[in-house]
Amino acid sequence: MNNNNTSKNKALTRIRIAKGHLEKVEKMLEDGAYCPDIIHQNRAVQASLKKIDEVILDGHLHSCVLKEMYGNSDKVNRRSKKMVEEIVELFRKN
Amino acid sequence: MNNNNTSKNKALTRIRIAKGHLEKVEKMLEDGAYCPDIIHQNRAVQASLKKIDEVILDGHLHSCVLKEMYGNSDKVNRRSKKMVEEIVELFRKN
Amino acid sequence: MNNNNTSKNKALTRIRIAKGHLEKVEKMLEDGAYCPDIIHQNRAVQASLKKIDEVILDGHLHSCVLKEMYGNSDKVNRRSKKMVEEIVELFRKN
Amino acid sequence: MNNNNTSKNKALTRIRIAKGHLEKVEKMLEDGAYCPDIIHQNRAVQASLKKIDEVILDGHLHSCVLKEMYGNSDKVNRRSKKMVEEIVELFRKN
Repeated sequence: MNNNNTSKNKALTRIRIAKGHLEKVEKMLEDGAYCPDIIHQNRAVQASLKKIDEVILDGHLHSCVLKEMYGNSDKVNRRSKKMVEEIVELFRKN
Repeated sequence: MNNNNTSKNKALTRIRIAKGHLEKVEKMLEDGAYCPDIIHQNRAVQASLKKIDEVILDGHLHSCVLKEMYGNSDKVNRRSKKMVEEIVELFRKN
Repeated sequence: MNNNNTSKNKALTRIRIAKGHLEKVEKMLEDGAYCPDIIHQNRAVQASLKKIDEVILDGHLHSCVLKEMYGNSDKVNRRSKKMVEEIVELFRKN
Repeated sequence: MNNNNTSKNKALTRIRIAKGHLEKVEKMLEDGAYCPDIIHQNRAVQASLKKIDEVILDGHLHSCVLKEMYGNSDKVNRRSKKMVEEIVELFRKN
């Protein structure tokens, strides 16, 4: 089973990168950059935050949800795992 | 005509607030908060960044675009302004 | 446990309404309606299709997924149900 | 200058194709297809309707808006056209 801490660590790394990119948006605004360029940069930050949502949801479904449903046993079957993957996929393409 | 600097200043204020909220997401991850709660907080940041896009686009259309089209004259007519409002509105609801 | 057929029936009703609204978009295009008005109408169709996704996902999670995980027993507990609700909610606000 | 009728004709063709795809979603629901498969198909319809919004907006900006601003003269300059393209692009990536 996926480790939820791994997902949270991945998410943390991405959040720190996103903070750097958001600071770039701030700098562009301060410097009077061309508006469409600022919007493109700001959109990139939004896309990276959306990706972080997926990483967290993936960890949540693989750890908390499956664990809740199966307890600590290892009996999680292939179909259950496939269903979890499908849900993450639906969320990702939303 | 709307002042583009006003829009950029509004956007800057909002960016600084968004940075604070993103730091809260980071803190929640570090503290091992419950995943759906982290995602909700992260979504709020995304919504505020999307709002910033609208503020910047609004300033861009009212200043750069109308100015480009009309020069420095004051002949911008009501219909042109209405069209610009409609575009911002379409963008906002997207 | 929620009945998946109920969800599919709800979704079917909504699909038929959405088809009617999409025909209205077609008619507006044929009649040369004002572009922003057509886009607003078309957006309403998209929003109703997105709502249909939620209805289907809700049925899927309540029936297929919980059933897969718990078999036909009635042992689905409150926490599992709450987790499913949270996932639908995250999907809805995406 | 782009012809708005061309855009509306393009949009009409796409609407008719989208209607066919929406009927497929309806059929899948009636046939009891697997939920994630139905959602994927329904998402494809939503994506094609979003594309139609872009086609209509593109026609609107190139014809109604530029025409409003420049009248029937041919004096639309390169920078104005570029600005219109940028707006369509921002809308597309939203």
